Parts: sequence; structure tokens; C-alpha cells
Amino acid sequence: MYNFRNDYSEGCHPRMLDALVRTNLEVTPGYGTDHWCRSAADRIRQAVACPQADVHFLVGGTQTNQTAIAAFLRPHQAVIAAATGHVNVHETGAIEATGHKVITLPAPQGKLTPAIIWELVRSHPDEHMVKPGLVYLSQSTELGTVYTKAELASISSLCREQGLILYMDGARLACGLTAEECDLTLEDLPRLCDAFTLGGTKNGLLFGEALVIVSDALKPDFRYHIKQRGGMLAKGRLLGVQFDAIMQDGLYLELGRHSNRLAQKLARGLEALGYPMYVPSPTNQIFPIVPNSQLPLLDKLCYYEVTAAVDEAHTAVRFVTSWASTEADIDGFLTELATAL
Amino acid sequence: MYNFRNDYSEGCHPRMLDALVRTNLEVTPGYGTDHWCRSAADRIRQAVACPQADVHFLVGGTQTNQTAIAAFLRPHQAVIAAATGHVNVHETGAIEATGHKVITLPAPQGKLTPAIIWELVRSHPDEHMVKPGLVYLSQSTELGTVYTKAELASISSLCREQGLILYMDGARLACGLTAEECDLTLEDLPRLCDAFTLGGTKNGLLFGEALVIVSDALKPDFRYHIKQRGGMLAKGRLLGVQFDAIMQDGLYLELGRHSNRLAQKLARGLEALGYPMYVPSPTNQIFPIVPNSQLPLLDKLCYYEVTAAVDEAHTAVRFVTSWASTEADIDGFLTELATAL
Amino acid sequence: MYNFRNDYSEGCHPRMLDALVRTNLEVTPGYGTDHWCRSAADRIRQAVACPQADVHFLVGGTQTNQTAIAAFLRPHQAVIAAATGHVNVHETGAIEATGHKVITLPAPQGKLTPAIIWELVRSHPDEHMVKPGLVYLSQSTELGTVYTKAELASISSLCREQGLILYMDGARLACGLTAEECDLTLEDLPRLCDAFTLGGTKNGLLFGEALVIVSDALKPDFRYHIKQRGGMLAKGRLLGVQFDAIMQDGLYLELGRHSNRLAQKLARGLEALGYPMYVPSPTNQIFPIVPNSQLPLLDKLCYYEVTAAVDEAHTAVRFVTSWASTEADIDGFLTELATAL
Amino acid sequence: MYNFRNDYSEGCHPRMLDALVRTNLEVTPGYGTDHWCRSAADRIRQAVACPQADVHFLVGGTQTNQTAIAAFLRPHQAVIAAATGHVNVHETGAIEATGHKVITLPAPQGKLTPAIIWELVRSHPDEHMVKPGLVYLSQSTELGTVYTKAELASISSLCREQGLILYMDGARLACGLTAEECDLTLEDLPRLCDAFTLGGTKNGLLFGEALVIVSDALKPDFRYHIKQRGGMLAKGRLLGVQFDAIMQDGLYLELGRHSNRLAQKLARGLEALGYPMYVPSPTNQIFPIVPNSQLPLLDKLCYYEVTAAVDEAHTAVRFVTSWASTEADIDGFLTELATAL
Repeated sequence: MYNFRNDYSEGCHPRMLDALVRTNLEVTPGYGTDHWCRSAADRIRQAVACPQADVHFLVGGTQTNQTAIAAFLRPHQAVIAAATGHVNVHETGAIEATGHKVITLPAPQGKLTPAIIWELVRSHPDEHMVKPGLVYLSQSTELGTVYTKAELASISSLCREQGLILYMDGARLACGLTAEECDLTLEDLPRLCDAFTLGGTKNGLLFGEALVIVSDALKPDFRYHIKQRGGMLAKGRLLGVQFDAIMQDGLYLELGRHSNRLAQKLARGLEALGYPMYVPSPTNQIFPIVPNSQLPLLDKLCYYEVTAAVDEAHTAVRFVTSWASTEADIDGFLTELATAL
Repeated sequence: MYNFRNDYSEGCHPRMLDALVRTNLEVTPGYGTDHWCRSAADRIRQAVACPQADVHFLVGGTQTNQTAIAAFLRPHQAVIAAATGHVNVHETGAIEATGHKVITLPAPQGKLTPAIIWELVRSHPDEHMVKPGLVYLSQSTELGTVYTKAELASISSLCREQGLILYMDGARLACGLTAEECDLTLEDLPRLCDAFTLGGTKNGLLFGEALVIVSDALKPDFRYHIKQRGGMLAKGRLLGVQFDAIMQDGLYLELGRHSNRLAQKLARGLEALGYPMYVPSPTNQIFPIVPNSQLPLLDKLCYYEVTAAVDEAHTAVRFVTSWASTEADIDGFLTELATAL
Repeated sequence: MYNFRNDYSEGCHPRMLDALVRTNLEVTPGYGTDHWCRSAADRIRQAVACPQADVHFLVGGTQTNQTAIAAFLRPHQAVIAAATGHVNVHETGAIEATGHKVITLPAPQGKLTPAIIWELVRSHPDEHMVKPGLVYLSQSTELGTVYTKAELASISSLCREQGLILYMDGARLACGLTAEECDLTLEDLPRLCDAFTLGGTKNGLLFGEALVIVSDALKPDFRYHIKQRGGMLAKGRLLGVQFDAIMQDGLYLELGRHSNRLAQKLARGLEALGYPMYVPSPTNQIFPIVPNSQLPLLDKLCYYEVTAAVDEAHTAVRFVTSWASTEADIDGFLTELATAL
Repeated sequence: MYNFRNDYSEGCHPRMLDALVRTNLEVTPGYGTDHWCRSAADRIRQAVACPQADVHFLVGGTQTNQTAIAAFLRPHQAVIAAATGHVNVHETGAIEATGHKVITLPAPQGKLTPAIIWELVRSHPDEHMVKPGLVYLSQSTELGTVYTKAELASISSLCREQGLILYMDGARLACGLTAEECDLTLEDLPRLCDAFTLGGTKNGLLFGEALVIVSDALKPDFRYHIKQRGGMLAKGRLLGVQFDAIMQDGLYLELGRHSNRLAQKLARGLEALGYPMYVPSPTNQIFPIVPNSQLPLLDKLCYYEVTAAVDEAHTAVRFVTSWASTEADIDGFLTELATAL
């Protein structure tokens, strides 16, 4: 079976595994106060060119979004998100569980725009409704699409004008930034966002998300929030060791680039076989539209997920590549598929 | 430096590390739905002799306590705990963050008794106060003490009579159950508790707590709660792989027994040097009382934590051993200490 | 100035005022445990023909919705509502503040249908999303429309099949049930709903909502929730005295009928003057579409609210009548408007 | 039956009733945006000599404490209170329901001291525990005792030094400030507290608490919080009308003085009959210690509440007077009691 189910099907990339094995018997203080976490945070500050940023390491993506958003907002404030946003759909109400409403509008290709944000602000004018407080977006999005530098800058500008916090969920940041059509760089993020994450779980770590807090107003007491939300890892150095490894020699972005390249090769191959794409994603998630009659065939060839019914006879499915995907996976799958058709 | 700071200063025991390395490139489905988690859950059900229990794997202790308690209680219900209980003191209000009050009374040696529980129930008689809903205790306790079978049975009996859920935090369960004075076994727990945990983080895993839900009323939809509280690990198999390894060949209890033995050897050695104990702990946490004048000496010899000021001139400190502690650590430290005095 | 701003612009109907004045110096126990509350609850149980229902009195509508929904749901469960639903839009995230997501779809004329509910259930299939737990609807709706007996029965039937709690917000129940096109009666409600409210604030009381809990599963400990959410009135008898008065001699429905009659007379008069209605409401809220150029004229004649921009040149406004509106108000306003045009 | 059960057994003082009757048919905008609320707020600002304070009107005491504290604190912050504090004991976990822990120590006679506050601050030093954020105290306290100007000043000074918000619950402020041994005045409060309330429910209103916010940092968006917590009264002018009436001609303090005088007369009378006091309260709540054998006699003579078992044979009970108590009540009760003994 070929595996295109997701980008977290295996353990971790060999370099992180080596680092974990090598440091296993080291004695360090707990809860992320160790030298590996310090070193990893320094490497991230350097990579994003923001020496004064605070960097925290958490275990998972939902946990990171929940902890950050709950720490950043006052009780009456709401999160603005695309209707397809991860915090709106796929976190089992984790944001609401901390007391905050997520307000949304449909967003073409999963991307917020200044117009959408403004419409949500405009329609929440007084104390009988929640007050928009934070804009959540992800790079890449749930549909694999990416924000360009100009797009993010225009959103950032509106956020500043309206006093909204801009938070970027970078669960798939490596893929987002290395997509061909993306001109954003790591160094751009602190200038445009108040806080953002560098995802590890979906980019070759066993687990781990790095939260970068840029705005001074959001920094105080953040470790209290990590602990209160259950995200403070006793052996916190596991996060430091892994991020320290991946932030060296360009590995972080390299793994994203690798995933993208294979996904795009797969997309071109599928298009050549006559499958149109549901959404034009330049990253490691692609969404071919498949005749329902061919789904049993797919089930035999590979792991994948169903995204949406396109019409009565067609389904958009999701294929995902990862650091662990190989050229041979793509070639083999395309060949077997072509043969079977 | 000798390390008696805690039982989570290193990575993990070699058997778990081997298992992680060996399975690293396996492709599995995410979120704990893989075969390793199933196997580990089966092993735990077998070890506790409760085939119908539900077993879930979470990453950390605070997260597990928070998720379980919030899932089990209705909004107006409170947690009964010892004043020293971990949920009361050391979780940054994680329980309250989910809406529930923790009500406490001082508990000698950190242990709840039926009398304490009854006093808290009796003093909360009507709707102007919270309603006691769950009894939280830990085995071993924050002070290293343990509940005997008779003690736990009497608490369990009161809980059933009063309609209280009995939840045992087993972050240090291996040490608790293998303490010399403890006659409780793994098989006793499902008979006496509604839910309990088998701690991994403090017993040789990189991380991980196994939550065993015995009462049918507490089982439905529990995975929703794990996800909502940010505790659902994408690569959930990491928990399964580790618990699958530690639940074989008696390793789980063996590591607890090892830690206890070294801690008790250290305690006896310290007593021989004239240090009384703050509390008579039979497990891997011991609490010698040290003249304040000797604290600088301790600081040079080892890592430890301060527990409490006993009087103006003495301090109770905490020494903890772990699976990674060695006979040589104890002997070496005692010798160096004796020499330095 | 004519007043069509809302149905809570004045104090209370004379009968309730008399009752309050008459009983002012009576000594009663607090918190709704007095004989007036008992009597009022009995009258309500009789009116809805449900002797085993629990009846609680709360002060306001948002408070009642929040308290009931938070008491009824487990943490991972969500509320299904129309996108225009009061709990979704106009309660400043009160439901989310208790931890629950409100999931919605656009609902024609503000009314849920089995198809809408089913679509929301169907699209929330697993633990990575919230679990639909309760259907919220209001009678009459935010747009003045009403559910017929057949419509409510079909929703009720789906709710039972899917294990969803059906909760009816009756802030404007008197108007809803006495609308010409509504064949639902008070006696129908306990058969179809798990819980519902009889609104007082918008029907001639100083304040007060009566919550009727029909389902046994939702009854236990409800007074704890009222207290915890800040809704337990010290002088609770104020609620009992008022509801006791309004539940006599058919006054409750009579006030709704009165409001409806005047609103419908106003609607017919406005239509005769050439104003179409934004939505065909048979109750005390009507929504004429007005050329923007005439808004300044309206501003001079009466109080009203803006509902929505219909197109660049037209606005839908809301006119509301109440127990305090008079025939002369309607006639006078229509005459002045016709004259001014 | 004489009534000493509490200070909210009747409706309201005639002046407030007259005001409500007189204004009943006025048409005003809703939600406290009317001219009565503005006028009442102005009178309060004048009475406390703080022109820049924000004044909000809420319905009940628990609601006001919950709304204010939840609005003022960030999620990881805790409330410091006396163990007997209303927010700790008698609000059914309303504070915890908004996510905040209440940390306490036993406080002699129900009064916090700088030493108690400091001990709670000192023992919560890091992110593994909640962070003290607000000091809650009430004037008068749950035991009828009062803070003097010097006592409150020393607490205020510590709060400022430690960055703690100082919040005074004035549910019984009129009695607190007019107690013979109290040298605090309304004008002192804005200088010493960050926010405080003037209680109405227990001082002759049907209901209503006025929240005075002094610190600029606590003011923004407060009306959102009132709405979100269910405390925004649709006919908000009921609060304005009543507070406008009671803040005229010194009535607010006069009613407190009246209650105190009668309670103290009762206390002296009871002492003369040989009943010692459980706590030396100078306000309208007194706590005589009664032989258990005489409780049945008391039950026949009057309404009262039980406070605590003093020993096996004696009980401390609570007698409360109010604006509605009369000289004749006290004289009559004391005579009947003396006769019956």
C-alpha cells in the first residue's frame, strides 16, 4: 500500500531520532528549562531574524492553538477564521472550550482576505455580540493553499488598524514557505504576525510545535498558560532536542520542500491521467477529483482521505506526502494506477 | 553531581527507546488508533484483570487529570482532594480552568481518609455551594506515602455510598504499588476505583499516562474530550509502542521497585547520618530534614528540591530516585556526604 | 414619538405591578423557595398540562439559555442553531463562554428544518469535531416567524432519533403561540420538547423567564446551575409573584395576541402604503423594507431598529409592538406617515 | 414570627417602590442605556467623589462578583480570599466556573490581613501554580465584621506593591460603612480599591448591585462581560430608577445605619440575657451562641439561620436585621424570649 494518508504516519526523520538516542541519558532539568530548549529557541530566533521573540515548545497543534488563543484574548473576544479553518472544524471545539467563539465566513480556497475579515468586524459592532480579537490563519491552509507576502501584508495591515492580533498556525509552515508560488520567508513572519508557529509534528518530528511570540503584550506569563492547559512536557528537553536538530543546516525547510516536490509531481501525474484538482494547491496536500466508481481501486492502492463530495458521481480526495515519501512512491503509485485504469 | 531532583531527568529506559527506534519507520494511522495502542491497551487490561475497561493514552499527568475530571463531572460538581494534592497545588489551576472547584482539607501525610471526605461532603449540603462529585487521590501521594488496600477500600466504600466518583492519579503508581508497606495490587484497582492512571513519564517512558476507565457511565465519548483538551497525539502510536514495551515481562512494576529500593537505601543511610525524615515515605521520594547550614553543601553534591521550612533552622528537602538511579549513586553520595560533614 | 423599538421599553403590565406592590412587605424565604414561586410553577405546569415538569424562574433570556444549555450538555457537545439564532448572534458568546460551540447553517426565515439539523449532524461524524448535542430554536424566531405543530413535530422526531436534546427559547412564546398561522399550543410543548421557556420580559413582566424542564434526565441539581451562573435572585419571589399574576385568566397569551394584532395591523397598513415585507412574520415583530431616502422621516416619527441592508437603496427595518402598544399608536403612526410621504 | 433570617426577606423600601410605580410606563431604551441609569451613575460618582469612575448596574451579587472577576483577570490568575469569603463558599463555584481558582487561608473574624495575603503570594512563586491576581474582600464581611480605614489602607498598599487588583464586595456596604467602629467613608473607597460594589439587594432595593470601576485598566469593554455572563437586564432602567432613588438624601447609608442600630440593640439585649457572641460584629448580622436545648424555642419565636456548631452543646446562630426591621421587632422578640426562658 502506498501511503498518502497524511504527513504524520511514521515516527521521525533519522536526524531527530539520532539526536534523541544520543541525548537519552543526559540529566536535565524538566519542563523545557534545559539547554536544548534554549539552544533550539536561539536557532529559531535566528532563523526568523527576531532576537527579541519569545519561543515556547508545545507538543501538539490543537494544544498550541488553544493555549495561545486563550492566553491572548480576553473573555469577550472572538477568533476570526476561515470557515474551513482548523480551529473552527477540526479541534473538537477546543477554542470554545476556553470560552471563545470562532466567527467565520466561507473563504475561497481556505484563505482569509481583508474583505472577509472586515465583513466580520463590521457585523460585530456592539456589546450584544462578541468582539473580534484575533485573526487565525494557517500557512499552508487546510486546502494546501498559501498566502503570498502581499496577501499576508494586507491582512496584517488591517489587523493593526483594527487592533486585531494576527496569529499564524504554521503546522505545515515548512511546506507553506517552500511552495513554488510563495514568496514569504521565515524572516517576514515576525514583521507581519503577532505570533506564529513552526510545526514539527507534520514535518519530521515525533511531535512538537514551536510557538514564536513577537508582540510584547502577548509575552507575559505565557508558561503559566502552557502548564494550565496541560501542555508542559515534564521531559521538555525532548522538544528542544528535536527542534535543535531540525533547525540546523536548513533541514526544517528542506523537509517541506521535499514533501512539496513529491506532492506536485503526483499532482501533475494525476492530471496527466485525467484527474482535475479540487483546489490548486502548491504544497504537500493535493486534492484530485475522482469518479466514485474508482474509489474501490484507490482503496486497494493506497491510503488517502475523503475531502468532499463534488457531485453525485465525483469525490475530492486528499493525498498527502511527507518527509518520508520517496520518488519511488510517486512513480510506483502512478504506474500502478495507470495500469489499473 | 548526583541527581535526586526528580524521576524524569533523563529520556527513557532502553527497552522503550529500542521499541521506538525499531518501529520508527512503520506506517500507522494516527491519533492512537494503531495496533500498538491496541496491544498496549490489551496488556494493561490484562495486568489489571479488567477485560471491559477502556484504556486511553495521554501525554502528561496534568493533561490526564484535567481531561478525565472535566469529562467525568457536571459543571456544578467539585473535586475533593488533600490540600497537598497535585490537582490542588501544582497544576496551575488546570481543574478550575475547566470550571470545577477543588475543595480540600489538610490531610496528614498527604492521604485522604473517609473522615476527611465525609467532612467535605457534610459541609456542602445545598445549591449555594458546589456539590462534591469526585474524590481525587494519588498513589503514591505527593509526600511519597501510600494507601493500603484497607484504606482504599474504606474510601471506595464511602464514595459508592455517597455517589462520588473515585479517581486515582497513578503518576507514580509503580512506586506506590511496589512499596514495602503496600498490599494493593494492580488487580485491586478496577474493583475499588472508577478510573485510575498508570503513569509512564515518571517510570521510564519518554512521556505517557494510561488512563483506565472502569465505570461504564464514564466511558462514552471520551476520545472527544482528549481531543478537545489538546491531548490527542497525532503520532499516538508513540504512546502505544512505549506502553506495549513496559507492560511486558513485569517491567512496569520492576522499575518502580528498583526506584523504591534505592530511595529507601538512601533514606536509611541518611538516617544513619542523623537526618530525620519529614514524613515516613516508603517510595521513591524521601524527605530528609536538613540543617539550613548544610544546604550549601547539598547544593554542591546533588540536585534536589526544597519541600518546606520545618523550623527556623531546618528545611525538609526532597530526594527522588528513578529507574535511572544506580546503587553507585546512592553509595557514592552517602560516602561523599559523610566525608564532607 | 411612536415606539416600535422593542417589546421591553416600559416597565410592566398593571396587573403585575399591582401584584408586586400588594406583596411588597410580605416576608418570604429567599432564592425562589417561597409560596409565590410554588404557585406560579403550579399554574405553569397546569397551563402546559405536564404535572411532572420542573419549573424554574430566572431573570433574563441570555441567562436562561446559557444556564440551561450549560447544564444540559457535556463539554464536547455543541448546540445546533439557525445562523440567525439568538444564541449564535446576540448573546456575546454566552454559550461559548460555558465551553460549547454553536454550529449553524443559514435557515430560511430564521427557522430550522430537519434537513438543516441532519446536515449538521452528518457533517460532524467523529471525535475530531464537536458532537451535536442540543437543538436550539425559538418560537417566535428572531425574524418573527413561527413553527407550526407539524414542523416542530418533525424536528422533535429527528431529535429523538438522533439523541439530541430539543430546547425551545420562548422569549416571545406568547406571540409565537397566538400567531394566526400557528397551530401549536402550550400543551403541545412538553410532548415535543425536552425543555422550553415562557418568556416574561418581552410579554409584560418587569423581567423573568420560566424554564420548563420536561425530560427527567435534565432535572437533577438544576438549582446549582442557576446559582453558579449568577441567576439565582435573592428576592426570588419577585419572579413568582409576577408569573403567578400573568398565568391567571389567560393573561399570558392575551398579551401576546394583543401585540400580534397590532403588529399585523401595522404591517397591513404599511403594505397598503407600498412597503413590502422583508420576511412574512405573523407575530409582533415586522420587517418592512424602506427606501433609504425615507429613513430620516422614520427617525422623526418613531423608534425602530435596522435589520439589514436589502440593496443599495433599501433597508429592512424592524417594528415591534408590545402589551403596551395601543390601537391609537398604530392608527396615529400610519396617518402621520401617509401624510408625510 | 419575628424575622431575623436575612436582609432580603421583603420587597423594597417604599421610596424605591414609589419610583418604580411612578416611572412604570415611561418609554426608555433598554440594557441600562437610559437616563435613569445615567442619573444614578452620576449620583454614585458624586457620592464616592470619583468623577472618572465607571459605574455599571447588575442584578445580583454572585453575578456581579463573577462578571467583574472574570473580566479583570487573565486565565492563569487566582483570587485571594478569606476562607469564609462569599466567593469561596457561597457562590456554587461561580468564580471557578469562569476558570479561576480561589486561594484562601483561614482569616480571623472573616477579615483578610496583609500577612495572610502575603503568605498566599509567597507560596505561589512560579508557573506550576496559579498566579495570585486579585484580592477579594467584603465590607462588611460574612461574619459582620468591618475593615477600618487603616486596615484597608495597609491591604491596598500591599496590593499595589504586588500588582494585585483590590476588589471590595459591598453587598452590605451600607451596613459596613455605618458601623460604629468603621471610619471608612464612601469617598475613601476609590482611593484604596480598584473596583468595589454598592449593594442594593440587601439594603432596600428589589435587587441590584452597582459596580464602581476605578482603575482605568479594568474599564474597557466591561459591558460585553455583563452581557456574556447573562447579567444585562433588558429593562435596565429598573436598576437606574432604584439606585437613583436610594442615592438621594442620604438614604443609602441611612438604611444601613438603621439596620445596624437595631442589630446592635438586639445583640446587647441578648448579651443581657446571657448569650455570648460568636464574633464581635458591629453591623446588621449578629451571631449569638445558643444552647442547643433552646433551639426549638428559637424556632418558635423567629426565623434565623445556623452558622456553626460551637461545641457539643452550643450553636452559633445568625440574626440579621434590615431596613424593614422595627424597634418593635427587637423589643417584642427580646421580651418574648426573656419570658420563655
